[in-house]
Amino acid sequence: MLPDVTGNRSDGRKGDLVATDARHVLHPWADLSALGRPESLIVCEADGVEVVDSSGRRYLDAIGGMWCVTVGYGRRELVDAMRAQAQKMPYFTPFGDISNAPATELAATLAALAPGDLNRVHFTTCGSTAVESAVRIAHLYFASRGMPEKRHVLSRVDAYHGSTFLAASLSGKEADRTRFQYESRWVHHLASPGYDPDTSSVSADQRLRELVEGMKRTITEIGPEKVACFIAEPILASGGVLVPPPGYHEATRELCRRYDILYISDEVVSGFGRLGHFFASEVRFGIVPDLLVTAKGLTSGYQPLGAVLISDRIADSLVAGADPAKPVFSNGFTYSGHPVACATALANIDVMERDDICGHVRDVGPYFIDRLRELRTSPIVYAVRGDHLMACVECQVPGEVGPTPRNQALAQRVDAYCEEAGLLVRPYENLCILSPPLVITRADIDRIVNILADALARAEQDLRAGRGC
Amino acid sequence: MLPDVTGNRSDGRKGDLVATDARHVLHPWADLSALGRPESLIVCEADGVEVVDSSGRRYLDAIGGMWCVTVGYGRRELVDAMRAQAQKMPYFTPFGDISNAPATELAATLAALAPGDLNRVHFTTCGSTAVESAVRIAHLYFASRGMPEKRHVLSRVDAYHGSTFLAASLSGKEADRTRFQYESRWVHHLASPGYDPDTSSVSADQRLRELVEGMKRTITEIGPEKVACFIAEPILASGGVLVPPPGYHEATRELCRRYDILYISDEVVSGFGRLGHFFASEVRFGIVPDLLVTAKGLTSGYQPLGAVLISDRIADSLVAGADPAKPVFSNGFTYSGHPVACATALANIDVMERDDICGHVRDVGPYFIDRLRELRTSPIVYAVRGDHLMACVECQVPGEVGPTPRNQALAQRVDAYCEEAGLLVRPYENLCILSPPLVITRADIDRIVNILADALARAEQDLRAGRGC
Ligand SMILES: Cc1ncc(COP(=O)(O)O)c(C=O)c1O
Ligand SMILES: Cc1ncc(COP(=O)(O)O)c(C=O)c1O
Repeated sequence: MLPDVTGNRSDGRKGDLVATDARHVLHPWADLSALGRPESLIVCEADGVEVVDSSGRRYLDAIGGMWCVTVGYGRRELVDAMRAQAQKMPYFTPFGDISNAPATELAATLAALAPGDLNRVHFTTCGSTAVESAVRIAHLYFASRGMPEKRHVLSRVDAYHGSTFLAASLSGKEADRTRFQYESRWVHHLASPGYDPDTSSVSADQRLRELVEGMKRTITEIGPEKVACFIAEPILASGGVLVPPPGYHEATRELCRRYDILYISDEVVSGFGRLGHFFASEVRFGIVPDLLVTAKGLTSGYQPLGAVLISDRIADSLVAGADPAKPVFSNGFTYSGHPVACATALANIDVMERDDICGHVRDVGPYFIDRLRELRTSPIVYAVRGDHLMACVECQVPGEVGPTPRNQALAQRVDAYCEEAGLLVRPYENLCILSPPLVITRADIDRIVNILADALARAEQDLRAGRGC
Repeated sequence: MLPDVTGNRSDGRKGDLVATDARHVLHPWADLSALGRPESLIVCEADGVEVVDSSGRRYLDAIGGMWCVTVGYGRRELVDAMRAQAQKMPYFTPFGDISNAPATELAATLAALAPGDLNRVHFTTCGSTAVESAVRIAHLYFASRGMPEKRHVLSRVDAYHGSTFLAASLSGKEADRTRFQYESRWVHHLASPGYDPDTSSVSADQRLRELVEGMKRTITEIGPEKVACFIAEPILASGGVLVPPPGYHEATRELCRRYDILYISDEVVSGFGRLGHFFASEVRFGIVPDLLVTAKGLTSGYQPLGAVLISDRIADSLVAGADPAKPVFSNGFTYSGHPVACATALANIDVMERDDICGHVRDVGPYFIDRLRELRTSPIVYAVRGDHLMACVECQVPGEVGPTPRNQALAQRVDAYCEEAGLLVRPYENLCILSPPLVITRADIDRIVNILADALARAEQDLRAGRGC
């Protein structure tokens, strides 16, 4: 299946790469206390749903790259589209009135896939830049309507929206708040909306009421005339696959409408098939947002690309309210609408449509969740939750709830046993997060669940024997 | 030379693309008052130093994509590297202790090319995200040293550092400040440091003294204990190719050292050969910054990629001062160190070294500037300035200085005549900005200057005849 490994399998080369990495790279989310220690996993090859590291070890990738490799690795169609576009026209400025064919065609394609009147596309280079652009558009929208002070942003505890200064300020994961600077005067975090019927002591209805009341209270406290937008992942992904109670999306959408607040749906993870549809907001959660942010699955991760989809209503308002003395929309990046990235996204969408990958997710997604839920019989599993192909297993030392140090150590042990058995899951606090490529089969799912079950059993034995946790 | 245009030459197809673009794309720096009007230039093909639009018109690209296509279009080496990497391993998460071979190798390569002890690389997706990361690192650095209030940032009027919320706040171009929101409590703009001996009424020494005194005054006013960093393009690019007076870089570097302020050199434009060296800070301007930002030419624009180079001193300090309870470096992006982008950057550096492109720039750069300076004989040219392959021609209605409406209209006319004659220059206010691919020949330079001379002559005739300006 996989071609040669060009020497990376040799220990010498592996040692070189790992040492070089330790010496020269500062990774995203690096553990600073380990910086410089040569212990990286260097991923060198990939094919289908599997990746291979620098010493030739092969893993089933249940992370999907990082929520993003939807059509799987080694897809000729995407590689060919990338190559052809790069050879033909690798780049030209997208500023002002200059465009390129793949960006134009991708914008039209996204408009056709998107809910409601989200017909205008502003491209960026990643999720964070798309989130930044969405919030800035909300700012411009109200300033254009003569309300520059309507600029406060509502986000939520446990949200993840990226790591530029503003996107990091919107994120509400306690674990990510470190000694960096964050904006807090005009960014507010509502309560984490996750609701798990398996573990909650209150009813879904009661939780919904609390959440909606809380949001209303916050809006009233700030003053609706000061609130520009609400940004929300339909299901909070990196925060721990937190699913809000039924009705939450419609109710928050309605509050936004009532208070003239723009609703930004962050579909960086939930979009492009992970929940069984190109976009989840409308089909799954019954809402049409004012702005929608996408990235990750947009190119199956093969290329860096993000986009904000803008409703015609908002775009028209930007035009109507443009400053006659300075009508320039001064936002955007050198690599906005990069032709190679856009050509790759178009090929990705072609593959997804041709192979009906969304249909496949709707088919295997419930099986994935059902099988994972069998793991709840393990005494060290506190909860299993998720939706279609995004899920997580929450670990616990029996009787101890949450991301306590012991629970985190236990989950790390589960992760390590999975890795040893050839399965990569994404460790986060006391969770094992799963977001496999969407082309995963029932057999792959069985393999994931079996390895996880073994890893849980081994970690449980360790716990009983007083080893390590 | 160029292969087929796959139908784009037909008027029907052209019309389709232009109309689709008008309907569905919100371009960076779009003119909102023209949104929806079908008038885009769609660039479809490119080869060497030329690009071709959707109706088959061919242009010499004196913009270099947008300061970035350094090795020229249609480079097989870059396309092959991209294709090979995408086929082998298109993406895997770079978070925490996971890496990939091209990112690791590129980091080591950049460390070898960079000045001083800038040996550690934090990858991003574009220039703006690299600028954001650099400033955030400065924040973390001082917070790690127990000085969280040392977070103010010094930038300059006429600077351009990108368009995320923070990067846009650092930018100091008056024309770009619109109804978006900007941070202003802890971002300060020093005076624009451009000095043109041809047009200035004061000596270079006097201007230098004023600039240094101004910077010292601002630092003292804010309080040095509150200032984290100073960010500076060696030559201000988008602000209008503004060259500081001799000694400015060393003097500002020295002030930063004296007041314990980190110096961030934004080499997004000046790096990767445009001034004849991989990085200009040390070789050209005699300074070693604490942090260095790169993007654009890093991949010759073929792929979205940015990076912050970090000095060992800073990196060591981050490690020493890491929060023991939370040592995570919570910054970075899904597509940080994207393997396909990094493989392309490595191929780009190979080509640059093999063909000694920096040497070529040192050879033709002075010829480019000398020939452009001949245009000063035109009565509608106020100034010609630049350095090696970044330059601009500033237009004026005789006697009227600066970006007045008439001067802007005049420059637009020059741009339009250039475009008509098959030359793309970058219009900005009353400037025609030039940053051609670095592989440009003396013959190409002659063509650029001749077309510009004609365009200036025609615009001057129009002016005399009272047409249009
Ligand atoms: C929901 C969500 N929004 C935004 C982002 C930021 O995307 P990026 O890492 O591409 O900047 C992420 C990344 O994980 C995400 O999960
Ligand atoms: C000097 C400088 N810094 C930063 C940037 C931002 O780069 P990007 O557009 O890739 O975000 C630019 C873009 O033109 C630039 O010229």
